[in-house]
Amino acid sequence: MTAIILDGKAVAARTEEELAARVARFKGATGGRTPILATILVGDDPASATYVKMKANACARVGMDSLRIELPASTTTDELLAQILALNRNPDVHGILLQHPVPAHINERACFDAISGHIDVDGVTSLGFGRMTMGESAYGSATPGGIMRLLAAYGIELPGKHAVVVGRSPILGKPMAMMLLNADCTVTICHSRTVNLPDLVKQADVVVGAVGKPAFIKAEWIKDGAVVVDAGYHPGGIGDIELAPLTHRVAAYTPVPGGVGPMTINTLIANCVDSAEKALEQKR
Amino acid sequence: MTAIILDGKAVAARTEEELAARVARFKGATGGRTPILATILVGDDPASATYVKMKANACARVGMDSLRIELPASTTTDELLAQILALNRNPDVHGILLQHPVPAHINERACFDAISGHIDVDGVTSLGFGRMTMGESAYGSATPGGIMRLLAAYGIELPGKHAVVVGRSPILGKPMAMMLLNADCTVTICHSRTVNLPDLVKQADVVVGAVGKPAFIKAEWIKDGAVVVDAGYHPGGIGDIELAPLTHRVAAYTPVPGGVGPMTINTLIANCVDSAEKALEQKR
Repeated sequence: MTAIILDGKAVAARTEEELAARVARFKGATGGRTPILATILVGDDPASATYVKMKANACARVGMDSLRIELPASTTTDELLAQILALNRNPDVHGILLQHPVPAHINERACFDAISGHIDVDGVTSLGFGRMTMGESAYGSATPGGIMRLLAAYGIELPGKHAVVVGRSPILGKPMAMMLLNADCTVTICHSRTVNLPDLVKQADVVVGAVGKPAFIKAEWIKDGAVVVDAGYHPGGIGDIELAPLTHRVAAYTPVPGGVGPMTINTLIANCVDSAEKALEQKR
Repeated sequence: MTAIILDGKAVAARTEEELAARVARFKGATGGRTPILATILVGDDPASATYVKMKANACARVGMDSLRIELPASTTTDELLAQILALNRNPDVHGILLQHPVPAHINERACFDAISGHIDVDGVTSLGFGRMTMGESAYGSATPGGIMRLLAAYGIELPGKHAVVVGRSPILGKPMAMMLLNADCTVTICHSRTVNLPDLVKQADVVVGAVGKPAFIKAEWIKDGAVVVDAGYHPGGIGDIELAPLTHRVAAYTPVPGGVGPMTINTLIANCVDSAEKALEQKR
């Protein structure tokens, strides 16, 4: 069996051409203004700093500006909330990315939920999650949203498939499960309290690793012909799924890196362009 | 094996005593005012009319008032939205119940989502669903919320159990799945597009019938020792699950009627008392 490589890097690159054209049209319609993504980085985590930089770089590639806000690790919840509320009120800002995770003393959920729905382009609010789940207009969480776009780009059929999502985090596992459910998958959500994880993963037609532990999901748990999606990234280019023994016997898989990661960033940028276009439309 | 009968009627009756005491305290603190639940019934569906009447009766049993609004089947979405917005602004109203389903020409989701979060005591809004899922303060959907309260009343242990929810409706299957997930169950969500439903139900330590078809889930699909929760109710006292052959070999089950139904109503009423107490607290 020759597996399909779900090449997020290539899909994202193709999409960036369309996004650049949309940004150019936006500039033309606004006398040279660009969509703006505000990025907020709190603290000194080097991986988070890298992710924010990659997102700013992606903005630049499509001709968008980013407004980079860097706050010290000592920032309080109230200080971060004040920053977010100020951005909500700034008409030049079309999207907010609050890089996850923030330092542990900050109430991240309160800060996420302070982001106005119309500029929640990273899809982190409770309201956006609820609306997405109920089939209403909303920016879904960027990583699972990017995964859905990647599967669609390769024509992966989802209705009736049994999807097993390993992980239940607010911005990854939970929205991933609801998106796959809305795409007519039967969905099983596993997590740290799951008793018989290997047996459950073995049933998966589609398995999503969203657990945040390197190579935690073993190749032997995954059945032949499955679609393997790895949302993890760990130092050394390792995902959440033990991938090497699988590449010859699954139907499709995301490489790490170059699979899910570029689609996350691409979805964030695409959502921000959407948001800017909607703001422009409302002004007319 | 002697199965535990998950007697929702008895649990609800016990809880009503506490609720009546809380309502009496509310009256004492407000010079005789009572918490008020506004109920909205649109159209002529006799089952819906019965449910609304049962909810109004439950209000009366605990000493609460209900404000009954009955609208013709010809009501438009805009007319219903206007009614809801008026109730949102009425400081005497502590909860809104919009009886599901409304006539098909009405955008039920838009009407649900027009209900202000603080009086969404039936737990139908997208925002409430999102907040509940993310572990924030919210009134969860009343039927799954009632099921969780019923399981807790009987000390049913949930962490690590495999719960299979059959049905994915916005106010039953989806919130049920998220509540069981937050209670540390491994959760599988099945629906009309699920391919191998019997095999999946056979794995369930806890099975929830939330599909709305009489005796759709067969007794032979359910393993010995399972906890069986039936959220269905059909004419003749039939639920979604073929129950009779199971009662001697499962660990626990909800009778139909007298299981889930009374807990749904009880949860709605309890949430409305909560809401009234919070409103009073905020005035102080």
